[in-house]
Amino acid sequence: MTDCQGDGDGANTPMELYDKLNVQGEKVRALKTAKAEKAEIDAAVQLLLKLKVDYKKMTGQDYKAGCPPSETCIIPDNGPAADGENNEDTVDPWNVSTTNAKGVDYDKLIVRFGSSKIEKELVDRIEKVSGQKAHRFLRRGIFFSHRDMHQVLDAYEKNKSFYLYTGRGPSSEAMHVGHLIPFIFTKWLQDVFDIPLVIQLTDDEKYLWKDLTIEECHRFAVENAKDIIACGFDVNKTFIFSDLDYMGASPEFYRNVVKIQKHVTFNQVKGIFGFTDSDCIGKISFPAIQAAPSFSNSFRHIFGGRKDIQCLIPCAIDQDPYFRMTRDVAPRIGYPKPALLHSTFFPALQGAQTKMSASDANSSIFLTDTPKQIKNKVNKHAFSGGKDTVEEHRKFGGNPDVDVSFMYLTFFLEDDEQLEKIRQDYTSGALLTGELKKLLIETLQPMIAQHQERRKQVTDETVKQFMTPRSLNFNF
Amino acid sequence: MTDCQGDGDGANTPMELYDKLNVQGEKVRALKTAKAEKAEIDAAVQLLLKLKVDYKKMTGQDYKAGCPPSETCIIPDNGPAADGENNEDTVDPWNVSTTNAKGVDYDKLIVRFGSSKIEKELVDRIEKVSGQKAHRFLRRGIFFSHRDMHQVLDAYEKNKSFYLYTGRGPSSEAMHVGHLIPFIFTKWLQDVFDIPLVIQLTDDEKYLWKDLTIEECHRFAVENAKDIIACGFDVNKTFIFSDLDYMGASPEFYRNVVKIQKHVTFNQVKGIFGFTDSDCIGKISFPAIQAAPSFSNSFRHIFGGRKDIQCLIPCAIDQDPYFRMTRDVAPRIGYPKPALLHSTFFPALQGAQTKMSASDANSSIFLTDTPKQIKNKVNKHAFSGGKDTVEEHRKFGGNPDVDVSFMYLTFFLEDDEQLEKIRQDYTSGALLTGELKKLLIETLQPMIAQHQERRKQVTDETVKQFMTPRSLNFNF
Repeated sequence: MTDCQGDGDGANTPMELYDKLNVQGEKVRALKTAKAEKAEIDAAVQLLLKLKVDYKKMTGQDYKAGCPPSETCIIPDNGPAADGENNEDTVDPWNVSTTNAKGVDYDKLIVRFGSSKIEKELVDRIEKVSGQKAHRFLRRGIFFSHRDMHQVLDAYEKNKSFYLYTGRGPSSEAMHVGHLIPFIFTKWLQDVFDIPLVIQLTDDEKYLWKDLTIEECHRFAVENAKDIIACGFDVNKTFIFSDLDYMGASPEFYRNVVKIQKHVTFNQVKGIFGFTDSDCIGKISFPAIQAAPSFSNSFRHIFGGRKDIQCLIPCAIDQDPYFRMTRDVAPRIGYPKPALLHSTFFPALQGAQTKMSASDANSSIFLTDTPKQIKNKVNKHAFSGGKDTVEEHRKFGGNPDVDVSFMYLTFFLEDDEQLEKIRQDYTSGALLTGELKKLLIETLQPMIAQHQERRKQVTDETVKQFMTPRSLNFNF
Repeated sequence: MTDCQGDGDGANTPMELYDKLNVQGEKVRALKTAKAEKAEIDAAVQLLLKLKVDYKKMTGQDYKAGCPPSETCIIPDNGPAADGENNEDTVDPWNVSTTNAKGVDYDKLIVRFGSSKIEKELVDRIEKVSGQKAHRFLRRGIFFSHRDMHQVLDAYEKNKSFYLYTGRGPSSEAMHVGHLIPFIFTKWLQDVFDIPLVIQLTDDEKYLWKDLTIEECHRFAVENAKDIIACGFDVNKTFIFSDLDYMGASPEFYRNVVKIQKHVTFNQVKGIFGFTDSDCIGKISFPAIQAAPSFSNSFRHIFGGRKDIQCLIPCAIDQDPYFRMTRDVAPRIGYPKPALLHSTFFPALQGAQTKMSASDANSSIFLTDTPKQIKNKVNKHAFSGGKDTVEEHRKFGGNPDVDVSFMYLTFFLEDDEQLEKIRQDYTSGALLTGELKKLLIETLQPMIAQHQERRKQVTDETVKQFMTPRSLNFNF
């Protein structure tokens, strides 16, 4: 920022200048409302314009109210789209929706969020560095976007390790198959890179956002931990924590939360998360709590107080706003920025216009569903890309791009060739919708039955082990 | 609130209705700014007026933007005062100032804050219930205002105990004599009622508000704890904690913080504390952290999880905004409201227009000052109510009401008769300013020397004992 000195009316950072602009904008409005002297209004407007010029000089961007500078700035997508469609995508931590049956336009999202696409070159590099075949989620673009993944690999090649951080908001006991996506992928990353993993259960967040008691949210956290553990994580390499417990067990974690809270203004969280003056102060300050595990010294028992271990966060793209904020704050408090790997959403049974939601039983396949329930739900609710009659289907073929059963197979069927054959046969009409659904049912039933079997093995003692702050099998 | 059902457009509490009013007010302004259709503006205005009527019905008060309902509502004191003076008093946790040399008009403050005056009847009752002569701070109106003190005494008479909570913001190592006032009084309360005491050191707050590192603030907390311990607190009855430590050591404390944060909106803290959109989210959510020790289940090691032990908070009146907020939240989260005893401010050496401030060395007598420094500061800086010449002073007398040396004697000279004689002699002119200052110097020098002696006895081990979460000598 040294090249900016002298600009910005004494503001040293884009954020300070942004705040000054907001204040000045409010002042101009107040003067106009109060019908102040023309000279006074003109002077205030002149200063506002000067600040805008300074802002452009400092950031390279135009000032926009409600849109803080740098990584936290999302280009609003509310003008008419060039191609006349896809202009309705809503993606934030609480809402995901689109009018497009194929789902959210992820290429546009990359541009809006300012992240980078995971190109084939990066997938190849992950294979090379890890010495393992890329996970199907990488091969098939389910993890499609990243931030700084090349930098993580550069360091790893130089024997500089990193750690993984992912999480879940425990809003109910019921987890569905979509919830497993980040955990399945994180487990693979942990296995191939042999690194520590921390998993945050934001029971405090769920208490703040939902009509639930603290005790309920904490209980859901422990129940969800069982499903997460059932994904096969190694207890010697994994620390799972409830915010409600860990905040009260780690002064280092709280110190990082306060550090972050000092460096983020209400203007910023308003711009990033859309909070309003009527929101409770708990929501307003919560983003710092989701940010804090991105810094290694939040976990003294694992990293021995070191603050320089890079963090890699695999998560669904709707969580990116939290980490744009985190990456904006990191250098200002002397920490490395976390890297990210973003996944697409897991579609609802009814179609890819929304993601699967535990609060709508018909849209979801739960981890507790019986084989019969799975069969019925897929047959009854899974949106089909097939034609209305068998004759038409045979003649014109189905559309796998909007077919939910096919989409689910891309998530869960390991064999690339088999998947490609299904795609071709469905497109040609050789494979009927009923047959496609049967293939999905036969994939899901054993997968979920096995999950249930593994979950049964998870005792309260096991959960306690995973959730106890302790050193892991790594030397930092 | 059941009698309010059907009113307020679905709002169930005054606060919800207040929030609705704010939103509607913003909407009307936005429509006017955007020069919307007249019919649309009219409809929005009609709804706004209806909500205002509902609000008056529900709360008995007129709606005022920036002034949330119930106890959190301060009557703004910015109109011309009836008597043409005292209309400039500023009293909030960060600023205390007045244009009146006698100091803040405390009677007006009681009306503005909605607290109750400590009448002679209450002082007598405290003597009767405690079986001890009232502390000079009570006899002389230095603790002048309260909330619910009668209720505390009613319960105490029925063998229902209570606990004390006070605190300090550790913004530097240097504490001055004014900082001792709440601690001297709290120690007396602890002695006469034989009850537990918790002392919060808000090192997190100081980090958020000041240009200090977390480590500095924490170090100041520990240093300040030594001065507090030197006031003579009983380690078996007293728990002193730094927020930065205790938040990370007590899940119960954090749970209460989150509970409070869920029940306070940004609108409310904006109204109470004057926060703006440019303030960091740490400041915005901090009031919940100062509120949480008001609830007994924040201290499991002392109260064994009980949430029904009443809290009594002795503090300077500028801290009242925090506890108005706390009292507003308490019933909504199922806790008793804390009671309060408010003190006046300890005046700066230069006069009672501001309180003594550690950041202005000339305004303060520090607990580390030598006898010579004390003598010089009093002689040089203490504002005098005496006349310009000895002749005039002998003839017309001095004014003890604006004389800082006399004010300090009301704080520290135990003997009521001696103090009254000094007042009379100074008023008559029999006592000269130099003589009055000498009396103060002779009172302060041994008092501070003894404090320094006691502080020397406070070892790191003693501090650790006081600051370790543990059970105290009480059975709850």
